Amino acid sequence: MPGVGIIGYGYWGPNIARAVVEVDAMALRGIADFSVSALERAGRRHPTARLLTDWRELIADPAIDAVVVATPVSTHFDIALAALKAGKHVLVEKPMTDSVFKASLLVEEAARRSLTLMVDHTFIYTGAVRSIHGLIEDGKVGDIYYYDSIRVNLGLFQKDVNVIWDLAAHDFAILDFLVKSKPVAISASAAAFLPNSQENMAHLSVYFDNGAMAHLNVNWMAPVKVRQTLIGGSQRMVIYDDMQNSEKVKIYDRGVDLAEGGDSIRDKLVSYRMGEMWAPAVSTKEALITEIEQFFDSIAGASRSPSDGESGLRVVEMLAAATRSTVLRGQPIELGALRNVS
Amino acid sequence: MPGVGIIGYGYWGPNIARAVVEVDAMALRGIADFSVSALERAGRRHPTARLLTDWRELIADPAIDAVVVATPVSTHFDIALAALKAGKHVLVEKPMTDSVFKASLLVEEAARRSLTLMVDHTFIYTGAVRSIHGLIEDGKVGDIYYYDSIRVNLGLFQKDVNVIWDLAAHDFAILDFLVKSKPVAISASAAAFLPNSQENMAHLSVYFDNGAMAHLNVNWMAPVKVRQTLIGGSQRMVIYDDMQNSEKVKIYDRGVDLAEGGDSIRDKLVSYRMGEMWAPAVSTKEALITEIEQFFDSIAGASRSPSDGESGLRVVEMLAAATRSTVLRGQPIELGALRNVS
Amino acid sequence: MPGVGIIGYGYWGPNIARAVVEVDAMALRGIADFSVSALERAGRRHPTARLLTDWRELIADPAIDAVVVATPVSTHFDIALAALKAGKHVLVEKPMTDSVFKASLLVEEAARRSLTLMVDHTFIYTGAVRSIHGLIEDGKVGDIYYYDSIRVNLGLFQKDVNVIWDLAAHDFAILDFLVKSKPVAISASAAAFLPNSQENMAHLSVYFDNGAMAHLNVNWMAPVKVRQTLIGGSQRMVIYDDMQNSEKVKIYDRGVDLAEGGDSIRDKLVSYRMGEMWAPAVSTKEALITEIEQFFDSIAGASRSPSDGESGLRVVEMLAAATRSTVLRGQPIELGALRNVS
Amino acid sequence: MPGVGIIGYGYWGPNIARAVVEVDAMALRGIADFSVSALERAGRRHPTARLLTDWRELIADPAIDAVVVATPVSTHFDIALAALKAGKHVLVEKPMTDSVFKASLLVEEAARRSLTLMVDHTFIYTGAVRSIHGLIEDGKVGDIYYYDSIRVNLGLFQKDVNVIWDLAAHDFAILDFLVKSKPVAISASAAAFLPNSQENMAHLSVYFDNGAMAHLNVNWMAPVKVRQTLIGGSQRMVIYDDMQNSEKVKIYDRGVDLAEGGDSIRDKLVSYRMGEMWAPAVSTKEALITEIEQFFDSIAGASRSPSDGESGLRVVEMLAAATRSTVLRGQPIELGALRNVS
Repeated sequence: MPGVGIIGYGYWGPNIARAVVEVDAMALRGIADFSVSALERAGRRHPTARLLTDWRELIADPAIDAVVVATPVSTHFDIALAALKAGKHVLVEKPMTDSVFKASLLVEEAARRSLTLMVDHTFIYTGAVRSIHGLIEDGKVGDIYYYDSIRVNLGLFQKDVNVIWDLAAHDFAILDFLVKSKPVAISASAAAFLPNSQENMAHLSVYFDNGAMAHLNVNWMAPVKVRQTLIGGSQRMVIYDDMQNSEKVKIYDRGVDLAEGGDSIRDKLVSYRMGEMWAPAVSTKEALITEIEQFFDSIAGASRSPSDGESGLRVVEMLAAATRSTVLRGQPIELGALRNVS
Repeated sequence: MPGVGIIGYGYWGPNIARAVVEVDAMALRGIADFSVSALERAGRRHPTARLLTDWRELIADPAIDAVVVATPVSTHFDIALAALKAGKHVLVEKPMTDSVFKASLLVEEAARRSLTLMVDHTFIYTGAVRSIHGLIEDGKVGDIYYYDSIRVNLGLFQKDVNVIWDLAAHDFAILDFLVKSKPVAISASAAAFLPNSQENMAHLSVYFDNGAMAHLNVNWMAPVKVRQTLIGGSQRMVIYDDMQNSEKVKIYDRGVDLAEGGDSIRDKLVSYRMGEMWAPAVSTKEALITEIEQFFDSIAGASRSPSDGESGLRVVEMLAAATRSTVLRGQPIELGALRNVS
Repeated sequence: MPGVGIIGYGYWGPNIARAVVEVDAMALRGIADFSVSALERAGRRHPTARLLTDWRELIADPAIDAVVVATPVSTHFDIALAALKAGKHVLVEKPMTDSVFKASLLVEEAARRSLTLMVDHTFIYTGAVRSIHGLIEDGKVGDIYYYDSIRVNLGLFQKDVNVIWDLAAHDFAILDFLVKSKPVAISASAAAFLPNSQENMAHLSVYFDNGAMAHLNVNWMAPVKVRQTLIGGSQRMVIYDDMQNSEKVKIYDRGVDLAEGGDSIRDKLVSYRMGEMWAPAVSTKEALITEIEQFFDSIAGASRSPSDGESGLRVVEMLAAATRSTVLRGQPIELGALRNVS
Repeated sequence: MPGVGIIGYGYWGPNIARAVVEVDAMALRGIADFSVSALERAGRRHPTARLLTDWRELIADPAIDAVVVATPVSTHFDIALAALKAGKHVLVEKPMTDSVFKASLLVEEAARRSLTLMVDHTFIYTGAVRSIHGLIEDGKVGDIYYYDSIRVNLGLFQKDVNVIWDLAAHDFAILDFLVKSKPVAISASAAAFLPNSQENMAHLSVYFDNGAMAHLNVNWMAPVKVRQTLIGGSQRMVIYDDMQNSEKVKIYDRGVDLAEGGDSIRDKLVSYRMGEMWAPAVSTKEALITEIEQFFDSIAGASRSPSDGESGLRVVEMLAAATRSTVLRGQPIELGALRNVS
C-alpha cells in the first residue's frame, strides 16, 4: 500500500489528510508543517502519522511513496521538484506553480522519472462537473459556443495570490477538462479596490481556435456568493449552479436557427427552439475522495488523471497570460508565448 | 399643448404612442411609417392622429412640435437631423445614432437651435434605477468600485445591430446616469455563433478615471433570461435584479477592511463586514410614462433630461469604442478618440 | 357563428370580451352592465357590440346564442338561470354559485334544455395544468398521494366573498380536473384579521376515498405572492410554481421504498430514490382563449368541457363544505351531505 | 466544573458530545450506549470519557452532575426520571416524552428536587429564530396574526415516531418561544402513504386564545427540502427561510387597511401598504453550542432556559392533541384536556 506524506497542514491540508485516510488503498504516513501548533492539531487527528517540521525529512522517508503539497503557491515548485527528485509521486495543490517555466520543469522532471505528477483541480472531480463532461462526451451539448462563469463572493482576500490565481484557476481547470478545442489567447481586466492588496476582481476572456469563447468573472468583493456557469452549445445549453442544494446541473433543449427571407428588418429574426429542461441526478460523492482515488490509480498505472502535470501546466499558462493582459488593460495575450520564458 | 408626431410604428412605436396618449400634457397628432399595414394598426388605436407614409410630411406639419423617432438605428440620424432643422424637438430611440460623428452633429444642431434632443434610455426612468440613483446620491453606496451586469436571454437576434448596440446600450445608459466618474477606455470581446449573423454574445470592460470598473455580459443565446447587476461600493453593495417580481433592488451593508499584521499567510486576511440587507420600496410607475413626462418638461424648460443628447452621444461613443475593441480581441480603446471621426 | 353576450364589465369582463373577439369562431354581439361608465369603456373597445344597462334585454336578444356571466358571485344564479330559460348557452365566472342548491338547479336546467353550462375555471386551461394533466394520464406520476398548494399574496380583499371562495376555488377546480379519486370530506380553518372583513386566511384539508389528501393554504395577507403546488405520487412528484417565468412545471423522479429488516431503530429507515428532474416545455397560449374555444366546442357538441356545470357544482360543494368546517374549527364535513339542502 | 454524561450515542449524541467539549464551562465525563460499536466510535473521539453500556451506571456516577438524554423517544421518560431521582440535571432530546402525563411527571420531579430540566429544542437557539424573537419583543411585528410553516423533504422515515412527533415538534417549540398568546386547540390531518409505516405527511392548525392561528405543513415525502415560515403581524410580516445560504430572515413593512366607503363592490377593497423589506444580520453561531451554554447557565441558576421542562411539556401537549385530532379527521382537540390523563 503506497505511503502518503502531506506537506502543509494549514487550511486545505487537513482536508487532504482526512481524504487520504478514507481511501483504503493508501496509507497516511507523515505530515510536515513548519508550525508546531499545526503539527499538534495534526497529531490529535492522526496519531500514527510521523510529524515533521522540515518537509525535507519527509521526502527523505523511504516509507513514503507519494507526497501531497499543500503549501503556499510560491513554495510549490521547490517542494514538488525536490519530491520528484527523491523519487516520490506528487500531487500539488492548485495552481501547480506561480510561473509557466517552473510548471514545465516539473512536468519534464516527472516524465523523465516516470513518476505521477498531479494537480489538485478539485472541481473536475465533483459529480456536477463529471456530469457535464458526460453530457458533452455524449454529444448532448453539441459544439461548445461559450462557457460563461461567475465565481464571486465576499472575502478570503489573500496576500500571496490575487483573485485570478485563486478563483479563475478553478475555471481554467474545468475548461481544460471540458473543452476539447484549444485556447489560443486571453484578454483580462482586473482591479484592486483596497490599498496594498492584490487584485480582488477580474474579468477574463479566453479565445479558442474554433471560435468558441470562455468568459470568467471572479471577485472577492461581491455581497453574495455566486457560483454559476452557463455553457452554450449548438445542440443544448447547460446551467451549472454550485450554490443550489439540488439540481446543480440543468440542461436546456434550447437554441436558435437563423431564418433567412423576409424583407423588413423584423422579418430577419431567427426562430427559437424552447424545449424541455432536465436536471440529471448528480453524484454527491466528495470530490476530494474521488481525486485521491485517481491519484492512487495514476500511481498504479491504472488510468491517467485528467488533472495531470500537463493539465496543471496548461492552467498555469492561462493564469500567466491573464495576469499579463491585466497590466495591459485587456490586450490579448497569445497562449504558448510564455511557455519558454522563466 | 405640444403636438407630438411618431416616426416608426413597428415594435416600439406603439408603446411610445400609448405613453404619449396617457401623458395629458402632450397630444399625439401624427404617426408616420412606410408600411401601410402598420399605419392601419395605428389608425385603429389612434383614430384622430394623422397617418403618413412619408415622415418628411410629418416633420413639415406645423401642428407637430415634437417628434419621436422609433425607426431602425441606421435611419435615426437623417430623420432626427431633418426634424431638428424643421424646428422640432426630438426624442430618439436608443442608441441615438450608429456613429459618434453623427451623434455629435445632432447634439450641435439641437444646441444651435435651442431645441430639446433626448434619447429613449428607458431604464433610467424605471423605479429601480431611480432608487439606486438616489442611494448613490445620498452617499449610501460610497465610492463606486465596480458595476457588473449580466443581460442575457434567448433571442431577438437582429439584423441591423449586434448584441452590443442592442443590449449593452442599456447598461451604458445606466452607467452614464449612475456613475459620476469618467469612463476612459473600453475593452471588449464578442462572438457570432450563427453564420452570417451579427455578434450575439459580448463581454465589455469599462475603465474609469478613478480606477472604478464596469463589466457587461450581453448575450442573445442564453437558455434563460437574466437581468442582474452587482454594484460594489466602498460603503455598501447593491444587487439589482430586474427579473424579480418584487425586491428588484437590494442593498447590502457589506464590505471588507484590510487587516495588517500577523505573520502567517492566513493572518493577512481582511476582516469582513456582514451587515443587514434591505430592499427599498420601488416605484412601479411605467418608465415610458416618466420618460415622456420628462420630454415635456425638457421642452418646457422645466428640467434637463438625464438622457439628453449629450448623454446619447456618450453612450454612442462607448458603443463605438466597444465595437472597435472586439475586432482587436479586447485591445482597449480610449474614449474620446472617436469623437471627431466620421 | 354563435353570437356572444357578456354580462358584467368590471374587473374580469373586459378580459373575456377581448378573448371572445380573438376567437374567430364566435362573435361578440352585446355587453350588459348596470354602470354607464363601464359601458362607455366597453363601447370604445368594442364599437359594434350592443350595449345594455339591463342584462334581461341582453338575454332576450335573438342574435345572442351564448352568454358569459361575469358579475358578483351572489348574482350568478339568477342571471344564469334566466339565461338558460331563455335558451342561451352559459359560461359563468367561478365559483358558479354561492350555494350547492343553486348550483344543482343550474345543472338540472341546462340538462333539461340540452344547453351548454360551463364554468370559468381558468387554471385548467393553462399550459402548465394541462401539462400536469397529461403526465398524470400517462401514468408518469402513478397513484396520487397528495396535492399540497400555497396560494397567498397581499391583497385584493373582497367584500362579497372570503378567501376560500376567491382563491381555494381555483385549487378545487384544478383538483377536480387532475384527481380521479373522489373527495369525501373536507376539514378547514379560517381567520379574519381585519374588523368586519371576510376571512382572509384559510387552510383546507380534503380527504379522498382512496386515502389521498389535498391541502390548500390560501391567504390574502402574505408579504409576497406565492403560487406553488406539490403533487406527490407513487411514481414521481411534481412541483408547479406559477410565479416562475419559465419551468413552471417540474417532475422529480423521486420517492421512497420502505426497507424492512435491521435491528436498531435507525436501521428501519426507508431507501430513497433520488433520480433526475425535468421540466417539460409548456404551452404559453393564453388560458382564456383556450377556454373560449372550449366553450364553442361544447356548444357545437364537439367535446365536453372539463369545467362543465357538474364540475362547477362539485367545486361549489367543496367550497360550501369548507366554509361549514371553518365555523366548527376544522370539524370534517362529509361531501354530498350538502347537495340537497337549499 | 459540572461533569456531563451523555446517554445515547446514535445519530444526535455525537453532536451533543462535540458541543459539550467545545463549551469550556462543562466537562464531558461519560457516555453510555447499549451498542459496543457506538461506544468504540465515542472512545476514539473522546478518549477521556468513561464508556458504559448501562446508562444506570452512568447516572450513578458521582462525577457526573448533568445528563443529556439522546435515546429514542419512548425511552426518554424512564431515563430522565431515573436521572432526576439520582440528583442529576437533565437535558432531553426533543420531544421530551411520548405522553403528556409522563412529561408532567418529569416537570414535577425536577421542581421537587430543584434540578434543571431542559429540552433540546434546537431551533430556538439559532441566530435566525433569536432574531425573529427580538423583532417580536421590540414590537416590530405587532400583534401576531398567523404563523405558517412548511417543513418538508424527502426522507428520514422513522419507525418510532411519525412526522408530527419528528418535524412538527420543531415548530411547536418555535411557537412556544415566539408567541405570547395561549394556544387553545389543535386540528390536524395526517396520512401514511407507505404500508405499515408511520404517518409521513400532516397538516396542523393551532388556534390561539386571541384569534391568532398557526399552521404547520410537515412531510417526509416531498421532492425537495423546504424550511419556510411566514409570520403575519399587524405591523410587519416575516419570512424565515432556513434553506437560504444568507438572508434567512426577511421583514416586510407590508400590510392592509380596510377602506370603508365607495358604492361598487370593487370600491370596498382595502388599501395595501407595500413598504421596504430588510434582512437583519443573523448570528451564525452554532445553535447547539448556545443551547449547551444555556444548560450550564440554568444549572448555575444564572438564567432560566426558554426550553425548560414546562416548555417541553407544552410541546408534548400540542403533539398529543395533534395526534388525537388526526384520527378524528381534523376534529379540533382542546389543549389542557390531556394534561391529567396517563
